[in-house]
Amino acid sequence: MTTTDKTTPGNFFEDFTVGQTIGHATPRTVTEGDVALYTALYGTRFAVQSGAAFAEQVGYPRMPVDDLLVFHIVFGKTVPDISLNAVANLGYADCRFEAAVYPGDTLWATSEVIGLKETSSGKTGIVYVRSTGRNQRGETVLDYVRWVMVRKRDEASPAPDPVVPDLPGAVGPAVLGAACPTIDRGQWDTTLSGSPMRWSDYQAGERIDHVDGMTVEEADHMMATRLYQNTARVHFNQFTEGKGRFGRRLVYGGHVISLARALSFNGLANAFHVAAINGGRHVAPLFAGDTVFAWSEVTETAELPDRTDVGALRLVTHATRDRPCADFPGRTEDGYADGVILELDYWVLMPR
Amino acid sequence: MTTTDKTTPGNFFEDFTVGQTIGHATPRTVTEGDVALYTALYGTRFAVQSGAAFAEQVGYPRMPVDDLLVFHIVFGKTVPDISLNAVANLGYADCRFEAAVYPGDTLWATSEVIGLKETSSGKTGIVYVRSTGRNQRGETVLDYVRWVMVRKRDEASPAPDPVVPDLPGAVGPAVLGAACPTIDRGQWDTTLSGSPMRWSDYQAGERIDHVDGMTVEEADHMMATRLYQNTARVHFNQFTEGKGRFGRRLVYGGHVISLARALSFNGLANAFHVAAINGGRHVAPLFAGDTVFAWSEVTETAELPDRTDVGALRLVTHATRDRPCADFPGRTEDGYADGVILELDYWVLMPR
Amino acid sequence: MTTTDKTTPGNFFEDFTVGQTIGHATPRTVTEGDVALYTALYGTRFAVQSGAAFAEQVGYPRMPVDDLLVFHIVFGKTVPDISLNAVANLGYADCRFEAAVYPGDTLWATSEVIGLKETSSGKTGIVYVRSTGRNQRGETVLDYVRWVMVRKRDEASPAPDPVVPDLPGAVGPAVLGAACPTIDRGQWDTTLSGSPMRWSDYQAGERIDHVDGMTVEEADHMMATRLYQNTARVHFNQFTEGKGRFGRRLVYGGHVISLARALSFNGLANAFHVAAINGGRHVAPLFAGDTVFAWSEVTETAELPDRTDVGALRLVTHATRDRPCADFPGRTEDGYADGVILELDYWVLMPR
Repeated sequence: MTTTDKTTPGNFFEDFTVGQTIGHATPRTVTEGDVALYTALYGTRFAVQSGAAFAEQVGYPRMPVDDLLVFHIVFGKTVPDISLNAVANLGYADCRFEAAVYPGDTLWATSEVIGLKETSSGKTGIVYVRSTGRNQRGETVLDYVRWVMVRKRDEASPAPDPVVPDLPGAVGPAVLGAACPTIDRGQWDTTLSGSPMRWSDYQAGERIDHVDGMTVEEADHMMATRLYQNTARVHFNQFTEGKGRFGRRLVYGGHVISLARALSFNGLANAFHVAAINGGRHVAPLFAGDTVFAWSEVTETAELPDRTDVGALRLVTHATRDRPCADFPGRTEDGYADGVILELDYWVLMPR
Repeated sequence: MTTTDKTTPGNFFEDFTVGQTIGHATPRTVTEGDVALYTALYGTRFAVQSGAAFAEQVGYPRMPVDDLLVFHIVFGKTVPDISLNAVANLGYADCRFEAAVYPGDTLWATSEVIGLKETSSGKTGIVYVRSTGRNQRGETVLDYVRWVMVRKRDEASPAPDPVVPDLPGAVGPAVLGAACPTIDRGQWDTTLSGSPMRWSDYQAGERIDHVDGMTVEEADHMMATRLYQNTARVHFNQFTEGKGRFGRRLVYGGHVISLARALSFNGLANAFHVAAINGGRHVAPLFAGDTVFAWSEVTETAELPDRTDVGALRLVTHATRDRPCADFPGRTEDGYADGVILELDYWVLMPR
Repeated sequence: MTTTDKTTPGNFFEDFTVGQTIGHATPRTVTEGDVALYTALYGTRFAVQSGAAFAEQVGYPRMPVDDLLVFHIVFGKTVPDISLNAVANLGYADCRFEAAVYPGDTLWATSEVIGLKETSSGKTGIVYVRSTGRNQRGETVLDYVRWVMVRKRDEASPAPDPVVPDLPGAVGPAVLGAACPTIDRGQWDTTLSGSPMRWSDYQAGERIDHVDGMTVEEADHMMATRLYQNTARVHFNQFTEGKGRFGRRLVYGGHVISLARALSFNGLANAFHVAAINGGRHVAPLFAGDTVFAWSEVTETAELPDRTDVGALRLVTHATRDRPCADFPGRTEDGYADGVILELDYWVLMPR
């Protein structure tokens, strides 16, 4: 960590070198308190993460923590070192959930710089990092690449040799499922889980409007983002943001992802586990007062090697603001339909 | 559950038949996290549900979960199947708390349709259900009747034979107290509990102004209602509600009940357990920005059979918005006094 | 407790006598749920209170609860009896954290009246109390003096003999550290804790701008204050406060203290434990919508007797509203600089 005197101004583009490993503060024990807050913030209803008796009956040793809560906590740790001076969060790739997290586990994170490229303006550069979240036993629970555009401290600094990592367009189905124990399909009660639709009921090309909408408040998204110990200033400081580009605080992009995931229960109730995120794009910002809607397309179905208990669906979920999704707004010839704020490409597991 | 393709539009009047049993999603493990959120949302101060050392000293095996938190969670489970297409929530009856709930218990719910009656408009019908909440051992923790006015899918559908259940005006005191262990009266410390007033200090006819007021915010009531996994759209979706009858999101009626109960501590500090709800009426809607006040009338006092540890008070609590209750606003000749939003008739237990 | 009929109007100046001991309701079990909410409300990142694995590695038997959460809970208990009729909260002194609090501990509080002095107006008086928070084993966890200006019930009541306690200007370093186990300095990982700066890196006279700002919402501060079961009406009741001096709800002063402490992580990341509060002054009120900033001055460094593991820093932290702190706004010739809302003098411990 670069420290100027006692406080940290965050790292600038010049502070990163390819191959560098960065350890992040602060270790974070995930508890039943976090789980309750996650429910209160999103209204999520997936049975495995809501009912211990259900989770244990289908094969989990205990009720696991929601995958996206794990993602947000690990992501939050990386912010002070990676993206405090970021101009834009450009993308995610190759994100895999590799071990289930249970209440009581302590998460911590490191990042390796895997690419650097100055932008043509000479004022910023793109930093590629692979961030890894681990538990108190050192086991990897989450691994992902993200790239952000970061300010240079000094525009006159020389550009580093550009290194752009070769990233997969999607996580292959062969490596999915490491965080999911063997599921006892016969014990999967579809009344309790909320839908009779299992993996084999979904087909590639199918589109699902998740129907419901959820309005976001300033207090909501700030509580969420503080819960994740994410320190990005744009989410919290109205005094400064009021004078900035939007005149308002921005909602953390991960908050949108969790809202979309919670809304997707209506249509994907048995998609109990996010196994991987292939890529994601925050197409436009979300502000408090806006109402979020979502729809999903199944883009691929896949079996997992040597597993007959669960199958994988590859989904592209779009979230919108103040626009219901009955007409499936998404990409257009020259960008995205009005109102689209998120396009997320990911794998979920479902009982077969 | 009626499923149109993958998403559920909720049940319409035609989907219900008398005698039908409906299993509800999603099982929900109640934790210390939920208890903390419940305190943060209402500021409740009843000693048995706040201090484990107090609860254990007076006779509970552990600190129990607030009765109304149990009610809201069970109620929330029924919403997607019973009241997603409801025009109005008409009433509750015969609600009994039958077993204490402790952190770690997993709650799930079923409903039996016990009555159906088409309304004179031919556009809606009244559905009566008995809903039952159970724990992970299958024990009933809560049982209640509610009736709601539900839209017909097709106005041309024939009316079913009307069946209107015979409902008790009140729960009889003889069946109260199943969820309450024997209380050691000598161990009940009235300094810690907040009041020297025990059961015998209250008389039928007594009216108590609870004095304090609590302002509701959008973030508050939405966090509460999501915590209960209650999916009723009117509480969450400003985009749609902004175009609707009120132009705003409605606060969940149960949120009002919990606010009134928390306010009632000032005057009823030793009323540690809600044993039954005889009936309730949401007289007018509550919106964010309004301040809730409450007052109660003791309408009956009762001994419990074979118990000398606790006695029962029957209360009618009124909640108001933006109207202090020093003048006890309630029923008038042609309805309710201005500002009244809730009339709740229930039984509480107090140490003798 | 003075009770008028069934509800309590709070105590007036005439109800207090020097030497009187007041037991407070309601005992409160602190849980992992409270810890999660505390994180969500402030975004605090000190490693000892965030990561159980970190806390245990450096010498705690388990992850302790944040010191200020303990303070707020104990303080909240005293409000109904001490300050419900307070006109002003005048000061704190001699506040010591004497035992660590862990999830599962039940806190309760008593206060002793140690001073009384009628004010010259004859309408109010100053009440000095020493309040003590204890756990379920009766061990003192927190002890502090505060004084408040309280209304008289009747202006004609005679003034009591004035008794003004002799209060220390600061807690002496010799008594600090009772709530802190021996810390294994070699196990203190400064990457995980967020800063390489240990006790010996700080000097008296040093000033640190904590840089970041946090905007407060009505829902935030009310959830916090309800979580602490603090019943002071000015925080909750817009109906009444809307007609009052400010036209708005006031944010609980302790909320400002916790915000300032959380912001101080940036510059004081290893200041893991608040050991004592020497004094504090709420210079001006805070309202929802305002953004809080903070800066600190190190006013003294001290070794602890017989301890080589940790050292103490005496800090004076100032919080402001809508004013960044790069120019260190504080006391001026005739008061405080514009925007200053808090001046807090306290001791923190850091690993040596």
